[in-house]
Amino acid sequence: MYFTSDNASGAHPKVLAAITRANDGFARSYGADEIMARVTARVREVFEHPEAAVYLVSTGTVANSLALAIHSKPWSAVFAHTEAHIATDECGAPEFYTDGAKLIGVAGDHGKMTPDALAQAIGRIGEVGVHGVQRGMVSITNVTEAGTVYTAAEVADLVTVAKRWDLPCHLDGARFANALVATGATAADMTWKAGIDVVSFGGTKNGCMGVEAVVMFDPAKAWEFELRRKRAGHLLSKHRFLSAQFEAYLEGDLWLDMATHANAMGARLATGVAAAGARHQHPAQANMMFPEWAMGTHQRLEAAGAAYYQMPASPGMEAARLVTSWNTTEAEVDQFLSVLRG
Amino acid sequence: MYFTSDNASGAHPKVLAAITRANDGFARSYGADEIMARVTARVREVFEHPEAAVYLVSTGTVANSLALAIHSKPWSAVFAHTEAHIATDECGAPEFYTDGAKLIGVAGDHGKMTPDALAQAIGRIGEVGVHGVQRGMVSITNVTEAGTVYTAAEVADLVTVAKRWDLPCHLDGARFANALVATGATAADMTWKAGIDVVSFGGTKNGCMGVEAVVMFDPAKAWEFELRRKRAGHLLSKHRFLSAQFEAYLEGDLWLDMATHANAMGARLATGVAAAGARHQHPAQANMMFPEWAMGTHQRLEAAGAAYYQMPASPGMEAARLVTSWNTTEAEVDQFLSVLRG
Amino acid sequence: MYFTSDNASGAHPKVLAAITRANDGFARSYGADEIMARVTARVREVFEHPEAAVYLVSTGTVANSLALAIHSKPWSAVFAHTEAHIATDECGAPEFYTDGAKLIGVAGDHGKMTPDALAQAIGRIGEVGVHGVQRGMVSITNVTEAGTVYTAAEVADLVTVAKRWDLPCHLDGARFANALVATGATAADMTWKAGIDVVSFGGTKNGCMGVEAVVMFDPAKAWEFELRRKRAGHLLSKHRFLSAQFEAYLEGDLWLDMATHANAMGARLATGVAAAGARHQHPAQANMMFPEWAMGTHQRLEAAGAAYYQMPASPGMEAARLVTSWNTTEAEVDQFLSVLRG
Amino acid sequence: MYFTSDNASGAHPKVLAAITRANDGFARSYGADEIMARVTARVREVFEHPEAAVYLVSTGTVANSLALAIHSKPWSAVFAHTEAHIATDECGAPEFYTDGAKLIGVAGDHGKMTPDALAQAIGRIGEVGVHGVQRGMVSITNVTEAGTVYTAAEVADLVTVAKRWDLPCHLDGARFANALVATGATAADMTWKAGIDVVSFGGTKNGCMGVEAVVMFDPAKAWEFELRRKRAGHLLSKHRFLSAQFEAYLEGDLWLDMATHANAMGARLATGVAAAGARHQHPAQANMMFPEWAMGTHQRLEAAGAAYYQMPASPGMEAARLVTSWNTTEAEVDQFLSVLRG
Repeated sequence: MYFTSDNASGAHPKVLAAITRANDGFARSYGADEIMARVTARVREVFEHPEAAVYLVSTGTVANSLALAIHSKPWSAVFAHTEAHIATDECGAPEFYTDGAKLIGVAGDHGKMTPDALAQAIGRIGEVGVHGVQRGMVSITNVTEAGTVYTAAEVADLVTVAKRWDLPCHLDGARFANALVATGATAADMTWKAGIDVVSFGGTKNGCMGVEAVVMFDPAKAWEFELRRKRAGHLLSKHRFLSAQFEAYLEGDLWLDMATHANAMGARLATGVAAAGARHQHPAQANMMFPEWAMGTHQRLEAAGAAYYQMPASPGMEAARLVTSWNTTEAEVDQFLSVLRG
Repeated sequence: MYFTSDNASGAHPKVLAAITRANDGFARSYGADEIMARVTARVREVFEHPEAAVYLVSTGTVANSLALAIHSKPWSAVFAHTEAHIATDECGAPEFYTDGAKLIGVAGDHGKMTPDALAQAIGRIGEVGVHGVQRGMVSITNVTEAGTVYTAAEVADLVTVAKRWDLPCHLDGARFANALVATGATAADMTWKAGIDVVSFGGTKNGCMGVEAVVMFDPAKAWEFELRRKRAGHLLSKHRFLSAQFEAYLEGDLWLDMATHANAMGARLATGVAAAGARHQHPAQANMMFPEWAMGTHQRLEAAGAAYYQMPASPGMEAARLVTSWNTTEAEVDQFLSVLRG
Repeated sequence: MYFTSDNASGAHPKVLAAITRANDGFARSYGADEIMARVTARVREVFEHPEAAVYLVSTGTVANSLALAIHSKPWSAVFAHTEAHIATDECGAPEFYTDGAKLIGVAGDHGKMTPDALAQAIGRIGEVGVHGVQRGMVSITNVTEAGTVYTAAEVADLVTVAKRWDLPCHLDGARFANALVATGATAADMTWKAGIDVVSFGGTKNGCMGVEAVVMFDPAKAWEFELRRKRAGHLLSKHRFLSAQFEAYLEGDLWLDMATHANAMGARLATGVAAAGARHQHPAQANMMFPEWAMGTHQRLEAAGAAYYQMPASPGMEAARLVTSWNTTEAEVDQFLSVLRG
Repeated sequence: MYFTSDNASGAHPKVLAAITRANDGFARSYGADEIMARVTARVREVFEHPEAAVYLVSTGTVANSLALAIHSKPWSAVFAHTEAHIATDECGAPEFYTDGAKLIGVAGDHGKMTPDALAQAIGRIGEVGVHGVQRGMVSITNVTEAGTVYTAAEVADLVTVAKRWDLPCHLDGARFANALVATGATAADMTWKAGIDVVSFGGTKNGCMGVEAVVMFDPAKAWEFELRRKRAGHLLSKHRFLSAQFEAYLEGDLWLDMATHANAMGARLATGVAAAGARHQHPAQANMMFPEWAMGTHQRLEAAGAAYYQMPASPGMEAARLVTSWNTTEAEVDQFLSVLRG
């Protein structure tokens, strides 16, 4: 009953097998391996975009930070939801990589920005000319930190606002596959067809060992990306091991299969939790949820071996953060629900 | 006949097996995995230093850069050999991580600084008070970029110079195991017993997939290290896969065995190359060498399938950079020498 | 009728005379001039603090930014009112100087943080360990951006909150003299006696040409300040001209006299404006106020030659920002009020 | 007998008078003052370039640093003479402002780079692709740190080298007027007609209080310059006092008259010093020279009241750095020479 995080799971056996295969013999280092060439081609197919620039890094934090750095300036305002991962959980990595850009929180229920709130936030910035930071870019997280999802149309609506001011748009897709599965959108629908310029396309949380792709639909910034990645110590010498993971991840739609499973387990868990009378803080739309229980319930679950994070909620109540992953089993979910029902 | 780099080799089967074992089940993320606790204990044993702080990252560039960042200030001078990796091959990563510290090149034959040259370089800095950068720290690379090694006593001599000004000292040990094997020094001799404050202890080039340890003998800076690592996107969520590599690397002295082999292959190759009449630019003391040949010889080697880097040398001559690794075979070396002899 | 800003005024004749006097002959450069030694002594007297470190720079932005930089880390959270000058009007200078620290806005009516709101903001930060920015420091602006003032006791209450977490506290005193005059506090009461660690002590807005002092009550960081100032290009070679201004500013309490006058003109204007029926957005407690008028009134004032900034307020209304200064005359104020009354 | 530095002199009376005049009444702040509009027009006339962007700042360090920052990237190599002020005397300000660019020293006799040495330095950089810093820009100091000057043709020759790689070129003209007077070149000849992209046009050392112009011949980067200047705290609110200085500086060619005088005093001093038997370390071509004397001579000069910097030279000898300025008198020079002759 391990619902702490999808990054507490290991890698899918096919990913591991690919790493083992990739280990044979010598390979060119620093991204010049043959597998990477195939990964680039496959990512372009997945996104239906033959010119996308594709790079691999080992964490979501650096994927996001580099995506922000190449599309902003040190004096830029970067608009994102108040609770976005880049704003709250990366120890200032975006500020480090952008040399000091300023994140502007946009509020919104259930982890989602609304077009109006975004427009107001962007509008306010820049009114003081040279005295203030300048309108820079927008970052949208999907699946959100609240476990909700934006549809492709909702993403497009936010991008439309951003483009009134010609701002580049980033999609933080640490759980990109879960968002696609939840909404039925294609990778293209959710990104460049909605106007997104750069995506952090997550692999780690969804069955890889540690790999994220950064996909840029305008390849003009590719060289700058390579320099920034190297300068940050994120260009792996034995890069083939990143490539191999991502190739296996995409092959035969393994990535979508794993997300489909994780979301299904999420739905089973969410439904059961609600049936047991708990209030969900946010609609549970993918593989993460935040139900509230009294302390006694938490103690009972913990005593039974359930693992997850807790955080203060309404008086007398604590919220749980429950995350399902590619290898969560029905049995685990059902055992949890059984303990919950008492 | 692949002598391009030791990072063109894959991982040792035992390292791969450890990764596979580590994949089972759930594990705490972000460095709180159980394997990491064992790695820390084992590294402390290897260094005979029960209080050392030990962290894992995935590249040598970031290991070096973080080691520099926590021991310097943005206005520091960092003294290193003119040809040090941090000065020439990391795209300014040290400047990025230190927020602008200044590398001061110290010249010296065969990739090695002399105590006198270091003393002069340090002495010159700081003469202009607030107008100049300030004496900051010293970084020593062992094995050097020239394929030579410092003995532990030579390291201690350089540190003695640095300590006249109380400067912290870093050892860039991307090929640390090869340096120990080449000199017969223990890990302790080569580092803290010689006065070194922080080590980049390489794994990747010597049979791992992608892992380097940073070992700090004064644990006071441990928390700052953790913050800087996270902020750089170098704290892996599925950290167990770094831990597993390093545990296997150290177990049963696999790391020393692999370096012993790589150095032995280096010696066999160097001897054969010299016997065939080539001049070595630098003494070949570990697993890397720089012999010079006329272009015709290079063409013959290349035609026979030998892979390595070439660089301009004396008129009419080009130098080769040949690197042997944990999985270089005697047969490969002998075949290369046979082609060379024509 | 020029109420645009106190920085639209020139320098007091005594300040100008001091500059002229200082121009004679040669003087040691870069802060080693004799006048500076007297300024340091005099500032220490004014603050009743014999060990304070005292430095001069030419703008408030850099005074604030350096004060923040020497008391924080790149991964620090800096707590300040949502509308603080450092947060909204310095084009990200704090982020530039701190290498990426994160400003956390603390809301509060009339430009003032409350101890509770500050405590909540500080409490929230740091809950996610290494994943989030760390509690860093607090910055308090007095006079606030809303034209209100904190009493020395109110400053002490905020500092008390900050010190629960051992956070250094900065006072942005761009209008420090106006705050002292408005509250009757001494310089010592308002700063180190209230627990403040570093002050930006403004001169420019209050009758100087361009000079601000940074006063640090713990001189341990003095050398770091000097290095950061130089590195930022803010160490003036002909520094005597900064020193001369500040010496004249402090001599015979000219600084307090000028602030007394500016505040008196502010009170006369605020009273008249209220008597004419306008609503003040914030209590007018020093030399700045924000009354609201219908557009017709603004047009009438402008037509009569009044100069000030306008900003959107409640429907149908626009707020004026009116600032009085050391050389605002009663006649000017009365003329303005006369036009206003129509 | 004050030959310490040209920044130990005060301001010319006309500059001071201009400041006094500018003090009257209210003026728009932050560079929107009317005097600045006239300064821009006049600088364009002086440079015969109707589109140049012109900005004022208060120190040479920030003028240089901003000029570098807007023409480089954090991963750029900036080529400059090994002894350039930006490399040795600005406490890493260029690294701070560029977010970590790397200064590459180009050696050359008497403070001057040769085209060949520059070409070699540029050629070497960039050979390692993404692993090394990238060719960025060139900075040329004129008058050099050695007191020598480049003719306009020599500047053009260096620029021609830089333009083989399309690199932007900066002229550090802290003593720009002295260089023009020494060579007879016009401002246009020495800069954009020679291919220079951006100039630090010094005022402070040559009779101003504290003002330098940055002149960019491609105005496309003007807005970025304004943002970077503000963000650095270098946009003065009472900017009129910078404008007034520079207007007076340019009016009636005061700037050239003062440099003519300083250079003439330099020549008188240099000739006398040589006649007295001293060796000049470098040809004395403007207002700065480095003669060598035995310690006894230095002591005699010091005893007689001469002030200047000393630095170690050949065995038994110390070099003096002697700088003349706009207000050095013939009497002073002759008195010094008289003491020297003994």
